[in-house]
Amino acid sequence: MIESGVPGKAGARLKYGLVGGGPGSFIASVHRAGIDMTRSAEIAAGCFSRDGAKNTATGAKLGIERGRVYSSYAEMAETEAARPDGIDFVVVTTPNDTHYAICRAFLEKGVHVSCDKPLCLTTDEALDLDRTAREKGLIFMVTYAYTGYPLVRQAREMARSGALGDVRVVVAEYAQDWLAEKPEDSKDVWRTDPAQAGISCCVGDIGTLIENVVHFVTGLEIDKISAVLSSFVEGRRLDDNAMINVKYRGGAMGHYWPSQVAIGRENSLSFRIYGSEGSLEWNQENPNEMRYAKKGTPPMILTRGGYGLGASAARWTRMPSGHPEGLFAAWANIYEAFCNTLTNRARGKPRDELDIFPTAFDGARGVKFVHDCVASGESGGIWIDGSAPEKF
Amino acid sequence: MIESGVPGKAGARLKYGLVGGGPGSFIASVHRAGIDMTRSAEIAAGCFSRDGAKNTATGAKLGIERGRVYSSYAEMAETEAARPDGIDFVVVTTPNDTHYAICRAFLEKGVHVSCDKPLCLTTDEALDLDRTAREKGLIFMVTYAYTGYPLVRQAREMARSGALGDVRVVVAEYAQDWLAEKPEDSKDVWRTDPAQAGISCCVGDIGTLIENVVHFVTGLEIDKISAVLSSFVEGRRLDDNAMINVKYRGGAMGHYWPSQVAIGRENSLSFRIYGSEGSLEWNQENPNEMRYAKKGTPPMILTRGGYGLGASAARWTRMPSGHPEGLFAAWANIYEAFCNTLTNRARGKPRDELDIFPTAFDGARGVKFVHDCVASGESGGIWIDGSAPEKF
Amino acid sequence: MIESGVPGKAGARLKYGLVGGGPGSFIASVHRAGIDMTRSAEIAAGCFSRDGAKNTATGAKLGIERGRVYSSYAEMAETEAARPDGIDFVVVTTPNDTHYAICRAFLEKGVHVSCDKPLCLTTDEALDLDRTAREKGLIFMVTYAYTGYPLVRQAREMARSGALGDVRVVVAEYAQDWLAEKPEDSKDVWRTDPAQAGISCCVGDIGTLIENVVHFVTGLEIDKISAVLSSFVEGRRLDDNAMINVKYRGGAMGHYWPSQVAIGRENSLSFRIYGSEGSLEWNQENPNEMRYAKKGTPPMILTRGGYGLGASAARWTRMPSGHPEGLFAAWANIYEAFCNTLTNRARGKPRDELDIFPTAFDGARGVKFVHDCVASGESGGIWIDGSAPEKF
Amino acid sequence: MIESGVPGKAGARLKYGLVGGGPGSFIASVHRAGIDMTRSAEIAAGCFSRDGAKNTATGAKLGIERGRVYSSYAEMAETEAARPDGIDFVVVTTPNDTHYAICRAFLEKGVHVSCDKPLCLTTDEALDLDRTAREKGLIFMVTYAYTGYPLVRQAREMARSGALGDVRVVVAEYAQDWLAEKPEDSKDVWRTDPAQAGISCCVGDIGTLIENVVHFVTGLEIDKISAVLSSFVEGRRLDDNAMINVKYRGGAMGHYWPSQVAIGRENSLSFRIYGSEGSLEWNQENPNEMRYAKKGTPPMILTRGGYGLGASAARWTRMPSGHPEGLFAAWANIYEAFCNTLTNRARGKPRDELDIFPTAFDGARGVKFVHDCVASGESGGIWIDGSAPEKF
Repeated sequence: MIESGVPGKAGARLKYGLVGGGPGSFIASVHRAGIDMTRSAEIAAGCFSRDGAKNTATGAKLGIERGRVYSSYAEMAETEAARPDGIDFVVVTTPNDTHYAICRAFLEKGVHVSCDKPLCLTTDEALDLDRTAREKGLIFMVTYAYTGYPLVRQAREMARSGALGDVRVVVAEYAQDWLAEKPEDSKDVWRTDPAQAGISCCVGDIGTLIENVVHFVTGLEIDKISAVLSSFVEGRRLDDNAMINVKYRGGAMGHYWPSQVAIGRENSLSFRIYGSEGSLEWNQENPNEMRYAKKGTPPMILTRGGYGLGASAARWTRMPSGHPEGLFAAWANIYEAFCNTLTNRARGKPRDELDIFPTAFDGARGVKFVHDCVASGESGGIWIDGSAPEKF
Repeated sequence: MIESGVPGKAGARLKYGLVGGGPGSFIASVHRAGIDMTRSAEIAAGCFSRDGAKNTATGAKLGIERGRVYSSYAEMAETEAARPDGIDFVVVTTPNDTHYAICRAFLEKGVHVSCDKPLCLTTDEALDLDRTAREKGLIFMVTYAYTGYPLVRQAREMARSGALGDVRVVVAEYAQDWLAEKPEDSKDVWRTDPAQAGISCCVGDIGTLIENVVHFVTGLEIDKISAVLSSFVEGRRLDDNAMINVKYRGGAMGHYWPSQVAIGRENSLSFRIYGSEGSLEWNQENPNEMRYAKKGTPPMILTRGGYGLGASAARWTRMPSGHPEGLFAAWANIYEAFCNTLTNRARGKPRDELDIFPTAFDGARGVKFVHDCVASGESGGIWIDGSAPEKF
Repeated sequence: MIESGVPGKAGARLKYGLVGGGPGSFIASVHRAGIDMTRSAEIAAGCFSRDGAKNTATGAKLGIERGRVYSSYAEMAETEAARPDGIDFVVVTTPNDTHYAICRAFLEKGVHVSCDKPLCLTTDEALDLDRTAREKGLIFMVTYAYTGYPLVRQAREMARSGALGDVRVVVAEYAQDWLAEKPEDSKDVWRTDPAQAGISCCVGDIGTLIENVVHFVTGLEIDKISAVLSSFVEGRRLDDNAMINVKYRGGAMGHYWPSQVAIGRENSLSFRIYGSEGSLEWNQENPNEMRYAKKGTPPMILTRGGYGLGASAARWTRMPSGHPEGLFAAWANIYEAFCNTLTNRARGKPRDELDIFPTAFDGARGVKFVHDCVASGESGGIWIDGSAPEKF
Repeated sequence: MIESGVPGKAGARLKYGLVGGGPGSFIASVHRAGIDMTRSAEIAAGCFSRDGAKNTATGAKLGIERGRVYSSYAEMAETEAARPDGIDFVVVTTPNDTHYAICRAFLEKGVHVSCDKPLCLTTDEALDLDRTAREKGLIFMVTYAYTGYPLVRQAREMARSGALGDVRVVVAEYAQDWLAEKPEDSKDVWRTDPAQAGISCCVGDIGTLIENVVHFVTGLEIDKISAVLSSFVEGRRLDDNAMINVKYRGGAMGHYWPSQVAIGRENSLSFRIYGSEGSLEWNQENPNEMRYAKKGTPPMILTRGGYGLGASAARWTRMPSGHPEGLFAAWANIYEAFCNTLTNRARGKPRDELDIFPTAFDGARGVKFVHDCVASGESGGIWIDGSAPEKF
C-alpha cells in the first residue's frame, strides 16, 4: 500500500500553485483533496480569479501568504520560478480555452504542470505543450483521474501483459442523465454553449474520458472512427449523445457510447474488454470490483485489495479489501504518481515504472479524438482517420 | 395469469405437425416443450428426417400414429390438409435453406405455420410467405421467442404507450462466447460454414434477435445502418462479431452489438432504451426483473408478477412474483398467443390484442436486416439504407 | 442434459392420479406442469373435489375418462390398484390435514405417492408414512421442489464431496412480504388461521423449506434449536416471522430467517454456506447462478450449464448456459427423478444415484422442525432438542 | 454538499494531538486521512510510542514541532491544556486496554476527545468517560466510522421519521474471512489472544459495529440477547463467529451475524430493516446505493447524491451522484460533524442537528453489548438482559 510524504524542492513536501479554483469551483476542490490525500504536496501560491477581491479572499481562505497570491498567471509563473522556495508544480483548473497559454507560461519558466482535461482547443496546441515539456525536461500531467483507480491499473497490467490474449473487442460507455432536459438555471449551462464549450459537449466532456481509459488500459491505437453525434434536447446546439464505432490497428473493434441523456444513469463509465484468452468488465460506479473471465473457466470477481491482483493494483491501494475507496483516492493516486516522479527526478533516482499518469501527449490524443468524432459526425458518421497525432 | 386448454380443429386441443426435429434436435425439443406448457396443442403428425428409419423411430417415440409419419413434407401437407382431423398448424424446424419451400407448401394447403428464425435466405422469399399467408387468411408465426418474456411485453407496453417519452437512444447487445475458439468437433460447426449458414454467422444467428426484440419493444423503424462484421478466429470465413450503429426514422440512435467471441458471456441479450421521460434496462439472463428509471426519481426494479406492471405482463405470467420463469415459459407464451389466435379465429371471435407474436413480416424484416448488415460490412461499414422491406 | 420419455406400468408413459387440484388450485397446476415437462407420465385418474359437479368438470377438462374420476380417494385407491392399467403413482395436493389419511390409503393399496409439503400434522404420522412406504417397497416423494434446481444439486455435490471443507456456518433465509398486511380478501387468508393452518404459518409454510434445502445440500443434522416466532400484524394469531438459531451436530452453527412481512422481498429463499475450504451463496430468485469462493482465490460465479460444474448439475440441466431455467424446471426435475426411479424399479434396474428427491423421511424431518420451532418459541426462544426424528 | 474550513481555538483550523499511531499504525493513518479531508483540523502534538526514538521520528515525519512531541500522554494532556495555543482535541488510537486512562487524563484537563472503538474494557469505565465528559462540558466521540456514510444517515433519517413505519425486523451482518485460518504470521494475531484482545475477538471487533450501526439507524433498544459464540479454527481461544438473536423493546426482532471465517467475504457489513411501511437494505462494500421498498410499490435504488434523499444525506455528500465516495469520506464526515460541533460551541452558536456522531455513551452501549453476548454465549446461548447501560 501507499507510503506518503515525499520531499520537494523546499526540502520537505512539494509546493504547488493553483491557477483557477475560485469560490465554488468544484473541480479545483477535487484536485486539492486528491493532493491532500497524498500528503506529498501543499499549496503555496495561487492565482484564483480575475476579480481581485475574490482572489485575495480565496488566498486567505487557503492560508497562502499574501505575497504569493497573484493577479496574473504570468506574474505568478515568473515570480515563483525565481524564488528559491518557489512552487514545484502548478495545477491549472481554468476554463479550457485558457489552458494552453497558462501551461505554456509555466513550462517556459521551468515549472512542472498538472492540467485539467480536455487539455487544449486544438491538437497542435496540445502537441506543442507536449514538445515544450519534453524539451525543457519537465513533467506534464493531464488529470484523467479515472486512470488512478487501482483496478483500472490492474486491468492495464493484465491487458498489456497478455493475460487477455489478443484484444478483439472493446465496449465502453459513459452514461449520464444530467442533460436529459435543458438545465436552464444550471451553472453548467455553459457546457452546451458552443461559444464557451467549443465544438462538442458530450464527446468533449465524457467521450474523451472513454477514449483515454480504453487506451490507458489496452494500449490499442485507433485507426478509423465513425461517429454520429446527436443533440436530443430541443434548442441545444451541441451534442448530448454519440454513437462511435472504432477500428483499431491490428483488427480489433470498439464501440464507445457517451451520453448525457441516459435517464437513470448517473456517471456510469464502464469498459468491457474481450480478448482471445479472457475478458475484463469494470464500472466506475462500483470501482472496487472487476469481473474477469478466463477462457474455459467460471468468471471471477477481482476486488481491490483481494486475491489474484498484480503489482499495479497493490501499489495504488490505500485501504484493505472490502473497505471501499472512492474517486478521491483515484485522484490522489495520479497525483501521488506525479509527485513521486518529481521527487525521484529531484533526487536523481530513476522513475518508478508503476508511477504512471496521463501525459500531455495523452491530452493531445484526446483533443484529436474529439475533433475526429466531430468531423465524422458532421459528415453523417462516415469513417475517417482516427489515428493518434504524431509527436512534434 | 394464464388459463390454458383451448379447443382446436378436432374439437379439443389443437393438433400440430412437426417438420424437422429428428433425434438430437435441440430446437425442436424446445418448440415441443413450449407447446406442451400451453396445453393448447398436441403433436399429431410429422416428417422428421430424410432417413426413413430415423423418421419412423422418432414418430414412434413421440406417439404419433403410423400413418401420420410422412417421408416427405409435401405429402404431409397434402394428406393432412385433406383429413377431417388434420393438423391445425405445422412447426418448421429444418435448416434455414429449406424453410421457404416447406412453409409455402403448407400455406398453399391452408395450414397455419410456425417457423424458426431466420425465416428465409432472401427478403423476397420471406415477403412472399407473408403475402401468401395474408392472401390465404392464414396465421404465420416466426419463433423469435424472447418476445414471449412477460417483462419484454411490459417494456413494449411502456415504450409504445409513451411512458418513456420519445425514445432517443437504444443500446442492445447479444454476447456469447461459444465461438471464441474454433469449435472443430462441435455439431454447430456448420454455423461458421458459408455453404450451410449462408452469408452470416453472428449477425444472422443473434444479431437478428437484437433487431427483432428492439423493434418488438419500441416499434422504431431503422433508417440507416453502418455495420462492421469481424471474423476474429483464424480461418473462420463468416462473422463472429459485429458493431452496428443504426439511425432510426425520427432521429433516435441505436447500437447493436452481437458477438460470439465475448469470453465470459453466455447468452447475454440485453436492451437498454432511453427516452425523454424514462428508461428501461433488461437482460435475458435474469429475465424476471427490469430496471425502470422515470425522469427525476430513483430507478425502480420492476419484477415479473410484482408491482407497477400493466396488462401485457399480467397476461403472460404463469408464476407468482419471485418464482422465476425461464425461457421455456417464453416459448410457451408465443405459442399460447398463436394458438389462442387460431382458436378465436376458428370460433369466429375477435383476436385478443394481447395475443401478440412475431409474424412472417417480422421474419422478412430480420432477413433484410442481416443482408443490410452484410452489405454495409462488405463496404467497410459505410452507412446504407436499412429500412424495413416493403410489403408485397 | 435430460432425456425424457420413460415407460410406465401400462407399457408407455407412467400414469398418475391426482387427489385435490380442483378449479383454481395453483399448486396442482404446478405439479402437472412439472410432470408434463418430464414427458414421463400422464394423468389418468383423479379425485379433485368433494363437490361432485366440480369433480366431474375438472376430470373432463383434464381429459380423464369418466370412469376414472372418483368421488372418494379411498374408492380411487382401491379401484385403480385393481386395474391392470391402474395409475403408477398418486399426486396428493389436498389441504395438509388430509395428507396422512390419503397417502396411507394409496400406500396400502400399493400405489407410489408424491405429496405436498408439509407432509403431515405430526411427526409420528409422517414417520408412519415413511415406514409404511418402506415396508411396502413403495416410493414416496415429498415435493420440496427447490431441491430440483440444478445449482442446488451442484451445491449438494460440492458440500458433500468436501469441496467446502468442514461446514462451519450456514445462513439461510426465506423472505416474502405478502403477509405484511392483513390479506383480508385473499383466498390465502386460511394460512394465518390456526384452525386451518395448524400450529404455524410462517415456519410451517416457508421455514420448513429453509430447513429442507439446507439439509439437502449440507447433510448437516440439527442438534439444538432456539426460535422466536413473531406475529407482527395486529390480530394475527399465527407467526409471520421467525428468528431461528441452530446448533448442528459437530459444532457448526446456523441461522434461519423465514419471514412473510419483509416488504420488498418476494420469494427470496437463499442459502450461504461457509466451510473451512470455501463457500457457496445462492438465491432462488436468480437460480441460474451461484457464487463460489475457494479459500485464497477470487470468488467465482458458477452458472447452470457453465464451466466447473459436476455430474449433478449436468444431469438436471435442460437448457444451455445463459438460457434461464425457472421453477417449472425444478419441479420437472424432482418428478423426473421420481419417475426414473419408478421405471428403473419396474425394469429391475438399479436406482441411478443422481435420481435424488425428497422422501417421506425428509417430510417427517420437516414436520418435527416446525414443532420444535413452535415449542422453543412458546417458551420464549429457549434452546431445545432439534434433532431429526428417529425412524420407526 | 460539504463546505470545509472551520476555525478552532487558535483562530484558524482546529488543532489536535494524537496518542498512539506509531510507525505502521493503519488505523491512526485513517483517522488522520479523515481529518485531513475535512480541512477542519491539523495535527499539532503527539505521543506516538513508548519508544523514545520512534516517538521523535514520527513527530518529525508528521511535521510537529519538537516541543510538542511528548513521551507520556499525561504530560501531553497537562502541557497542551496549559498552552494558549494548545490542542482543541485529542485522538486516541492506542490499544483498547489503555483507552480509559488516556481519555480520562485529557478530559480532566478540559480537552475534547475522539477515541477508537471499542471504547473500554468495561461498561463502567465507558460510562465514567461519558459522565466525565458531560460534567466537564466536553465533546467525546467514539469513531464508529460507518455512521459517517451519507446513505447510513439517510437510513437513519428515514427510519426515525417514520418512513418505514414500525420497524419489525432487522437482519444485520458483518462477514469477513481473514481469520478463516490461523494467521500465524500476521501482526493481527493479537486479536485472537485473550491476553491482548480481552473477552472477545469477533463480537468485540465487528459484532459491536453491527450493534452500533443498527442502533444509529433505527434507535431500537435491545431488550434481550441470545448469542452463540464459536471458535472454529483449531487452537483459537476467542470467538471467530457469532449467531446473535435480539429482542428489541416494543416487540421487533433482530439477528446479528458477525463472522471472521466467512470465506469469500471481505468486509461485508450490511443491514436490512423491515418496517410496517417499507424496508431498507444497505451494504458497506457498495456504500453509494441503498435499496428502498415502499409498501405496494416496486423497490427503488437510492443513490448517494441522487433523487429522493433528505437533508442528512445531502449534508454529508462530497461528490455528485455516480462519483463514488469511499470509507475515507465516511471518516471525514464523523470528524467534520465533531469539529463543527466544537467550533459552534467555541463561537457560542447552537449545535447543528445534522452534526451527528457516536458518543461515549454509544461506546458504553457497545461495551455492554459485547459483555452481554459473551455472557449469553458462556451459558450456551440463553436469553439474557441486553438492555443499554444506565447513565451514571
